[in-house]
This record gives sequence, C-alpha cells and structure tokens, in this order.
Amino acid sequence: MQIKAKWQGGRAFEAVGPTGYPIIMDATANYGGEGKAATPTELLLAALAGCIGIDVTMILKPHLETINNIEITVDGERREEMPTAFTAAILTFTVDGNITPKKVWRAIHLGEEKYCAVSASLKADITYKLILNGEEVSSEQI
Amino acid sequence: MQIKAKWQGGRAFEAVGPTGYPIIMDATANYGGEGKAATPTELLLAALAGCIGIDVTMILKPHLETINNIEITVDGERREEMPTAFTAAILTFTVDGNITPKKVWRAIHLGEEKYCAVSASLKADITYKLILNGEEVSSEQI
Repeated sequence: MQIKAKWQGGRAFEAVGPTGYPIIMDATANYGGEGKAATPTELLLAALAGCIGIDVTMILKPHLETINNIEITVDGERREEMPTAFTAAILTFTVDGNITPKKVWRAIHLGEEKYCAVSASLKADITYKLILNGEEVSSEQI
Repeated sequence: MQIKAKWQGGRAFEAVGPTGYPIIMDATANYGGEGKAATPTELLLAALAGCIGIDVTMILKPHLETINNIEITVDGERREEMPTAFTAAILTFTVDGNITPKKVWRAIHLGEEKYCAVSASLKADITYKLILNGEEVSSEQI
C-alpha cells in the first residue's frame, strides 16, 4: 500500500492513499502547529479503533440489525522518554443491543487474532474490555 | 491519550481525539464497506508520514522559507497471511529548495530517533530515502 503526503506549510500535511480521500494532519500549537486538523498520534489510535471496529461489524454482520450502538474507546499509554511511543492500549467496547456477550467477545477475539492489520502492526500491548447494555462483562465470564 | 470511535452503520466509524476533529473511516466495498472514507490502514501510513513530516519541518524551521516542496511517499509492505500487518515501510522524502542534503538527512534522522512517536510505535522496519532537487542522495554520501 502506498500513500503520499504533501506539506501544506507550517506543520500541516495532506496525505492521500488508494481510496483518494484526503487525510489532513497538523501539530498542536505547543508543537509549533496551528492545530487545524487531527494529529498523527490521534490518527494512529483512530486507525486502531476503526480497524477492529470494522472487523467486529463484519463478523457480527448477521446480528447488526439488533445492535443499536457500538463505541470503542482507546486509552493509549505512552513512554515518558522521547520518542513517546505507545506501549499499551486499552480498547473498551460499549455495545447496546439484543446480542449475547459470547457473540461479541468472539467477534473481538477473532478480529484481533485473524483480521486486524493495524493492531498486528503495533508494538503496544493491547487489551480489550466489553460493556454490554451498561454492564461490564469480562471474557472470562463467558 | 484517549480517542472515542462511534459506529456509523455499515462498516463506518467516526473517531474523535483530544483535538476534537472528526476522523471518518470506512471499509472498501470488497471488505463490506461503502468506501465513503479513508481506511484504517491508510490512516496508519498517513500517521507515519505526518509524524515524521511534522518533526522534520520542526527541526528545519530556520530553513523552511527556502524550501518549496516536501512530499513523503510511504510504501508499506504487508504480510501475506492474515492479519496482514505492516512488516516494512520505505519513506521517500522528495524535497525541493535551497538546502543542503546534510541538513535534510540530519532532520530525518533526528526526527526518527528522538521525536517520531508513530514510527517508534510500529513493528515495521522503516527505511528512508531522500530525493533533493530531483536527485537521490543517500545518507552515506553526506
């Protein structure tokens, strides 16, 4: 896969990959940017959430009509020393709908192990949590 | 750092991090999406380009007025087996302007070693190339 990023002046870049959609990035003011777009580290965590999210919705496709809401919160931990790489990430899935925790956990595990190219590309230790219809359900409970 | 991604139906997700800018993602049609936004793997490579690009422009700040163009092409290589993680990336900097190759290479190396949190978060082997004013200059030449 190839993407091309072009400098837009200041600290801003615009990248374009195979889909053709422009991806704009900027640094925040404390890193000399103008803060006029998302930062690269935000994009990295967004890519992680989007990747596993797409895989989970693909695996749960027969059940999507009974699911009202899927939110994925990514809490990324970083080294204190520079470069401040991500060392760990906690992905919390908040799912509301008429579906069993077993089916959701199966989709998360299958997504992680078989499909998600982004999580498999990261050095960070990734852990998963599930809050289904307002209650946390650990994968050991099912 | 925390980001929250919300399912938009189909395979689409919208993520928001500390800057508040929405980051829209979708799968392409061959993965069951509608192809209405960039994919997570594109965002990953864009984040890599944007991160090192921001660092290089920060380091080269005293020289930016003499630089007309900076483009960063990322060629990402992936595993054939699933998950198709990125195993390597070649970042080609195309720079045009009145600046020495030594200064640009110093900025790339310093960005990589000290500043770029995204490259430091990836498992992929990353290599760099520089095309300055139309001619490739290897880091060994300087």
